[in-house]
Formats: sequence, C-alpha cells, structure tokens
Amino acid sequence: MKNDLITILNPLEEQLLQVENEIRAHIYSGIPSIDGASRYIFDQGGKRIRASLVLLTAGLSGSIPAGAVKLGAASEILHAATLIHDDIIDQSILRRGNISVPQKWGNKIAVLLGDFLYTLALDLVLRVENNRIYAIMIEGTKNMVSGELYQLNYSNIDSITMEHYYKIIELKTARFMAACTKMGGEIGGFDESRSNNLYEFGMNIGFAFQIIDDTLDIMNDSDTIGKDVRSDVRSGKITLPFLHLMEREIDSAALLRSYISNPDDGKWEELMVMLRKSSVVDTCISTAKGFVEKALECLQPFEQSQYKEILVDISNFFIDRRF
Amino acid sequence: MKNDLITILNPLEEQLLQVENEIRAHIYSGIPSIDGASRYIFDQGGKRIRASLVLLTAGLSGSIPAGAVKLGAASEILHAATLIHDDIIDQSILRRGNISVPQKWGNKIAVLLGDFLYTLALDLVLRVENNRIYAIMIEGTKNMVSGELYQLNYSNIDSITMEHYYKIIELKTARFMAACTKMGGEIGGFDESRSNNLYEFGMNIGFAFQIIDDTLDIMNDSDTIGKDVRSDVRSGKITLPFLHLMEREIDSAALLRSYISNPDDGKWEELMVMLRKSSVVDTCISTAKGFVEKALECLQPFEQSQYKEILVDISNFFIDRRF
Repeated sequence: MKNDLITILNPLEEQLLQVENEIRAHIYSGIPSIDGASRYIFDQGGKRIRASLVLLTAGLSGSIPAGAVKLGAASEILHAATLIHDDIIDQSILRRGNISVPQKWGNKIAVLLGDFLYTLALDLVLRVENNRIYAIMIEGTKNMVSGELYQLNYSNIDSITMEHYYKIIELKTARFMAACTKMGGEIGGFDESRSNNLYEFGMNIGFAFQIIDDTLDIMNDSDTIGKDVRSDVRSGKITLPFLHLMEREIDSAALLRSYISNPDDGKWEELMVMLRKSSVVDTCISTAKGFVEKALECLQPFEQSQYKEILVDISNFFIDRRF
Repeated sequence: MKNDLITILNPLEEQLLQVENEIRAHIYSGIPSIDGASRYIFDQGGKRIRASLVLLTAGLSGSIPAGAVKLGAASEILHAATLIHDDIIDQSILRRGNISVPQKWGNKIAVLLGDFLYTLALDLVLRVENNRIYAIMIEGTKNMVSGELYQLNYSNIDSITMEHYYKIIELKTARFMAACTKMGGEIGGFDESRSNNLYEFGMNIGFAFQIIDDTLDIMNDSDTIGKDVRSDVRSGKITLPFLHLMEREIDSAALLRSYISNPDDGKWEELMVMLRKSSVVDTCISTAKGFVEKALECLQPFEQSQYKEILVDISNFFIDRRF
C-alpha cells in the first residue's frame, strides 16, 4: 500500500497544478499586503486533500470535468479561510511549519483575510453555475462553522462527552469533506443516489481523518507535524484519546485537569504513561479504521478506475499517516 | 420633511416585523451561548436600513413580494456579521449603546459568530432561488470585505488620499447598499435596466450615508450616537472631514498626527476649533447632499408610489440625521 500522499496523488499532478493556478488567479485583490498574506498562505502548500477529493470523486465519472478544478480551488480557499480564523481562536503560533497569519500580521488582518477568502471561495463556486452545488457548499460551510462554535462550547473537560465529541468532528470536519465529495459527484454528473453515496464516503473519511488528527496532536512533536502540538489539550479541548483515557483510568481526569490548568512536561509524561498502558491510541486508530471501512463500502457502486484506486489509497493513508 | 426614521418607516411596520421574525427563525443554532449572543445583537434593534431598502425597492413594483422579506432579513444578518468582525478589528467597546460582542464574549466567539451569521445570511438568500440575486449578494459581500481590507491598509494618515477615501467608502458601504437595492429590483421583477437604476440609487445613498457617518463620528458624543465616538481617528482612520481640514489648514496635519499618537482632549478641542473655522463639516454635508441628489435622479424612471416616497424620505433623512 502506498503510504505517502505525494506518491498517491501523483496521477493528479496536472489537475492539482490547475487548482493552484486557479487559486492564485482568483485571490488577487490588488492590495499589496493582502496579496502578500494570501500568497504566504498558499505558497506553504498543504495537503490539498479537499481539492483532491473533489477532483477524484468527479473523476469517477470517467474523466475530470473542467468545473471540478474551480470547485477544488474553492474548497481549498474556503479551508484556508477557516484555518486563519482557527489560528485566531486558538492563538496558534505555527501552521504548516510557518508562523501563523494572526501571529505574523495580527488579528485585524487575519479576521478580514479570512472573511475575504470565504467570499472569494463562494464567488468561485458561483462560476460553476449549478444551484445544487452552491447549496452543498453553503451547507458544508455552515456545518463547519457550527462545528467550531460547538467545539468552543462543549469541548472543555467539564462539558465534553462522546456524543459532543462526535458531533463536533461531524460538523467541523466530516460534513465539509462530505460536501467536497458530493460536489465532485454533482459536477461529475452522477444522479442523486450516487452523489449521496459520495457524501457518505466523504463523511466517513472525514471522521477517520479528524480522529487521527486528534490522536497525532497528542503523539507527535512539532518538528514532525509542522504545527503546534498538544495544542488541543493546552487550549482545553478534550479529544477522543483523552475521552477514552478518562473512561479507563480513574485517576486520569484529575491529572488532565491539573495539566490543563498548569501544563508542565512532568504531568504530560505521566499522562503519556497512562495513555500507553491503557492503549487508547490503538482504540482510536481502530475506530478510525472502522470509518474508513464504511467509507470504502460507499465506493462499491462505482466502476473500477484509476481515480477510484486513488480514493481507496487516500482513505487508507488517512489512518496510516504520521503527520 | 420627515426627519425621524421611525416615522418614515412606519408604513413598513408589518414587513419589518416579518423581517425580524425571519431573522429570529433563521439564526437559531441550538447552542445556548451562541443563541444568546445572536439574540443580544438583534434585540438591540438597529435602524434596519438595509432591510428597508430591499423591501422598498422591491415595493416599487406595486407591492412587496414575499421573497423580499427573506432578502431583507439576509441583508441585516450579513450586516450584523460585518459589525461583529469590525468590532474585533477596531476593538470597539460600544455598539448601538451596548457593550460590543467581542467585549462581552471575547474575540473567539466574535470571530465564529460573525462567520456563522455570514453563512446563515447566504443560506437565506439561497432560499429565494434566484441565481442573479445570489451573485449580487456575494459580490456585495466581497466588496464590503475588500473595503474593510482597503481601509486597514490605506486609511492611515500616511497613506490616505481623497481617492483612497472614496474607494474605501464605495467598497465598504456604497456597493453593499447598492446590492440591497438591486436585490430589491430583482425580486420586484424589474428588468436589468431598472435594476441597474436601483443599483446606482443604492450606491449614491451609500456614499451619502457613509460621509455623514464619518462626519458624525467627529461631531457627536457617545451618549447621542450609542457607539464609540472619535473612534475612527483614535484608531488612526482619516475620513473626509479631516482630509478637507488638511487641505485647508496647513497646521492641522501635525496636530492630527499628534492627537493620533497621543489623544488628549486639549488637542481635540484645537482640532475642533480648526474644523469650525474652515467649515469642513458644511463641505462634507454638501458633498453628501450631492450624492442624494444623484440618487433621487435614479428613482425618476419609477412610478410615483408610497414606497417611492419613503425612499425619497430615507434619502433625505440620511443627510439630516444627527446619529
């Protein structure tokens, strides 16, 4: 199995380059400092997973239609907007190995640049001239923002439950990925039933992706992952690994509370020992695998193709990735 | 002439109540703290000028169609979103006589609540199922955000020029009001030429509105106006009255610089003495009047009606208002 995203996405190289060009052409504002900040964001690269999902699901129809490039670009611009606003909210220092936009340009620019990119993304979707696609994008965006709001309210140690956790990741991640894959289905010309299969596919890989993301936030160091680590728990957000830990280790909740109120490496090490002992990471990975299995079932009605193979590889990569 | 907005808008009472109901029904998120913050914003009232513009321009067709209520609500929700983000950027304490959202709930909630309201507004516009209207709303939103970005870059004393000033208010205010009046034209069933008349009408009253707003920011005290005063100049934004002052009084630029770097009441009084002596306020008011005259010309092709009369009254109110 291919476990390197660049290799997996290699056959999409040309279309992903078109996506990059579309992004660059569309984000130009004529205001030098804004264009500088926009270029800074997109020059950092990023995995372009959402664009790839749009392109690949559209490609299940046989070939990738031109509109899919626009939609892929729109989904990446919209994703970038949410990351900028997230970095204000989380007061993140790093993003993709670089200083975050709010840290580099301040919150004022960051608020407006996020808003600007939101409107540019929606403007780009308009150009595809398909009402259903438009509605999917708006719904996906609304879900994502609702998820962030939900997270702000319910992810702290006093409020969080398994139900809240799954609701948060459903809204903030899974439903937006689902919007991307359904947009791919629509632009690829699939009927409603097949587009809904693709929506379910996106939902399930979205759940898997976020669970692994939350697990890596605990396991990695910042040199590997290129963004702040332990950032969730440092900012008081409790995610799946700690939810499982608190179920399994009676003393962990008190230790976690103590770490949140006063983070030090000693307490972190204690938490890590507990995590390893109770093998919650294995549980998280196996939960994510379950979602990927469900995702792959959703792809069954589609004919075998190069693009389908890549979707399978990406899905598996989501659980095997180390950053 | 009627110079009180409540009296002017009295014949619209029923439709404006429908707008309020539409807003309340649409902004419900199910997250108590968010719904609390949203209610807080909309319970403060506000002039509902944008909703009125949509309703009235739609009403020029003879009666106000049902879709105009949705569009009016959407324009107010979108406007509220921008105000929340503005209050983060300007670090405003007050808004409409109440503590601003970022001050009361913090920047995290404020960023996301603004994003949430943006997406809700666009979602509401979608329900009218008219592509042209959708494009108008997105374009208006994009202009507004671009205007804010432009302002952030070019409104300070070292960058500002008359051209920059007019570009800023065109983008951030005039073109969004124009979007509202053109949406009214579209939902009212007017042809492109008439809808464009309404767009020009909205542009011109938007210029007038913002020039008066900028002038009042200097003239008023916060008890009258219900929001921070001198906030523009305190945050380093130079608007039309000071642009004219610097043209007319050679010493004013140095004094203004000194006030911006260290605002004290003595310097402010000196600036006010200069302002009165050079009668820049009269110039600003007469510039605004010129825009209103041009706006009223754009209404000429439309048949006389109750709604047209109200549009004329609102336009005149824009220059006669004291807060």
